[in-house]
Amino acid sequence: MLTTNFNGLNEEEKALLGEAEKALQYAYNPYNSKTRVGAAVRTVAGKIISGSNMCISSSSANICAERVTLSIASSQGERNIHSMAIIGIDGDGDIEKPIMPCGTCRQFIEEFVKIGGSDIQILCSNTKKDEIVKTSLNELLPFPYIGSGDTK
Amino acid sequence: MLTTNFNGLNEEEKALLGEAEKALQYAYNPYNSKTRVGAAVRTVAGKIISGSNMCISSSSANICAERVTLSIASSQGERNIHSMAIIGIDGDGDIEKPIMPCGTCRQFIEEFVKIGGSDIQILCSNTKKDEIVKTSLNELLPFPYIGSGDTK
Amino acid sequence: MLTTNFNGLNEEEKALLGEAEKALQYAYNPYNSKTRVGAAVRTVAGKIISGSNMCISSSSANICAERVTLSIASSQGERNIHSMAIIGIDGDGDIEKPIMPCGTCRQFIEEFVKIGGSDIQILCSNTKKDEIVKTSLNELLPFPYIGSGDTK
Amino acid sequence: MLTTNFNGLNEEEKALLGEAEKALQYAYNPYNSKTRVGAAVRTVAGKIISGSNMCISSSSANICAERVTLSIASSQGERNIHSMAIIGIDGDGDIEKPIMPCGTCRQFIEEFVKIGGSDIQILCSNTKKDEIVKTSLNELLPFPYIGSGDTK
Repeated sequence: MLTTNFNGLNEEEKALLGEAEKALQYAYNPYNSKTRVGAAVRTVAGKIISGSNMCISSSSANICAERVTLSIASSQGERNIHSMAIIGIDGDGDIEKPIMPCGTCRQFIEEFVKIGGSDIQILCSNTKKDEIVKTSLNELLPFPYIGSGDTK
Repeated sequence: MLTTNFNGLNEEEKALLGEAEKALQYAYNPYNSKTRVGAAVRTVAGKIISGSNMCISSSSANICAERVTLSIASSQGERNIHSMAIIGIDGDGDIEKPIMPCGTCRQFIEEFVKIGGSDIQILCSNTKKDEIVKTSLNELLPFPYIGSGDTK
Repeated sequence: MLTTNFNGLNEEEKALLGEAEKALQYAYNPYNSKTRVGAAVRTVAGKIISGSNMCISSSSANICAERVTLSIASSQGERNIHSMAIIGIDGDGDIEKPIMPCGTCRQFIEEFVKIGGSDIQILCSNTKKDEIVKTSLNELLPFPYIGSGDTK
Repeated sequence: MLTTNFNGLNEEEKALLGEAEKALQYAYNPYNSKTRVGAAVRTVAGKIISGSNMCISSSSANICAERVTLSIASSQGERNIHSMAIIGIDGDGDIEKPIMPCGTCRQFIEEFVKIGGSDIQILCSNTKKDEIVKTSLNELLPFPYIGSGDTK
């Protein structure tokens, strides 16, 4: 866990966060808080894929940007994920603190940690990109639920 | 609601179902039933977008192919949806009856009916494509929950 | 599907809706729309069990009153459900139209239709109880997804 | 985080885990892995409430025992939670390692940490109760998503 700002990121990280920010334009949340979130993942092979949150009138079926993005990647057969960036903005203005993945998204990202066999880096940014948390899935979801379903 | 087979579809419908079937290759469900599902949507403007289900060790966070596909579309800014096709296959062989969208997916599709202002056609196919149900969201989710969240 | 008002209900239905209304007091939704919903089920043996919605900061993990109530019943070993009533109120006042179960809840109720082997009656009320829809799960979720998981 | 066994628990903890274990009898999961889970919470005032997982044919609507139990508590107006215990068993035998809450449940428990204003202790047991992890929500969900919804 490390807190920095945009200038503290390397070029790869800046590019990833930039793609997450671009994805904000297609975030869909006309309801309530109107929070919009964009996410982007970089595959181990270097491909960047982005997505945005999709919220509906029945909120329990909402899908956060992190899960949308990983589902886009999976639907392209891309499941070896190196890193993820997320950024959000509220209906009534900037989000001042870095936006963290919710528990459901952490469990979803964990699946890709298991698939890829190594931890996934996660950049969590506030709207202005002047406060960015650099962390990882293992740090955000210690001692994860791993299920009992067979994968054989 | 009408039951037909692949030859009973028009060319647009055949193409849409064909894309849903191609998406099966990237469905991810190593768990339990191992059911894999592919979906495709056609936008009102004629663009086809496909996606596949993404299942994880903690099953309540699974995302069905229908919701993945609509989230992909939304992340591209494509939310005027004309029609959807879905097809699936089980871990232990063909699914004999047409696969129907679950209730959560129906609610999710309903959001796009609301956005577009008109009903969405839905093709539900069995694995062999010799039994296909032609229906629509309004038929599958009568008297929908419409929420109280403001969309103004 | 029939629309009536409180006086159009029989005594059993009035009692069930009354319990759903009482459950409103414990509904938890400090967020956004602040919609609170209460539900009650009557088992085939005549027992009434009620519950209320539980909403959290991360909305995709919200649980509607219908699912909470059925989970309470299931945790008591009560899974033969005869009927359900639901009623809600918004943060900013009455809900004018009868509140309908969302798609996810319909799928959840469907499980109990399968367990019990017969349709479940559903009463959907507006806040004032002067507009009440009498319907059933089979009417609200035609041609349900039935899954491929084995139940043997 | 501390690993112990049943004899390493104090009397309150033993009682709580005992109630979670009793709740196993009403867990409902005829599908796939058939994993059954029981949970129990102790309120700050000393009341114990238990519940069990409820799984359906459409797995994304499954509700884990932890969320069921907290929803039961909330539906009774009990939201000041001191501690929780969870235990599970697989369809094909004992679960050898302590069962950990999934990410969605961690986010759900976090809501009650926020309500009560203090951390919640969590006991995670294997089926035989000879390996039990003593942890807490803050340890399992560091740097939680806290949302932007107003709670005023």
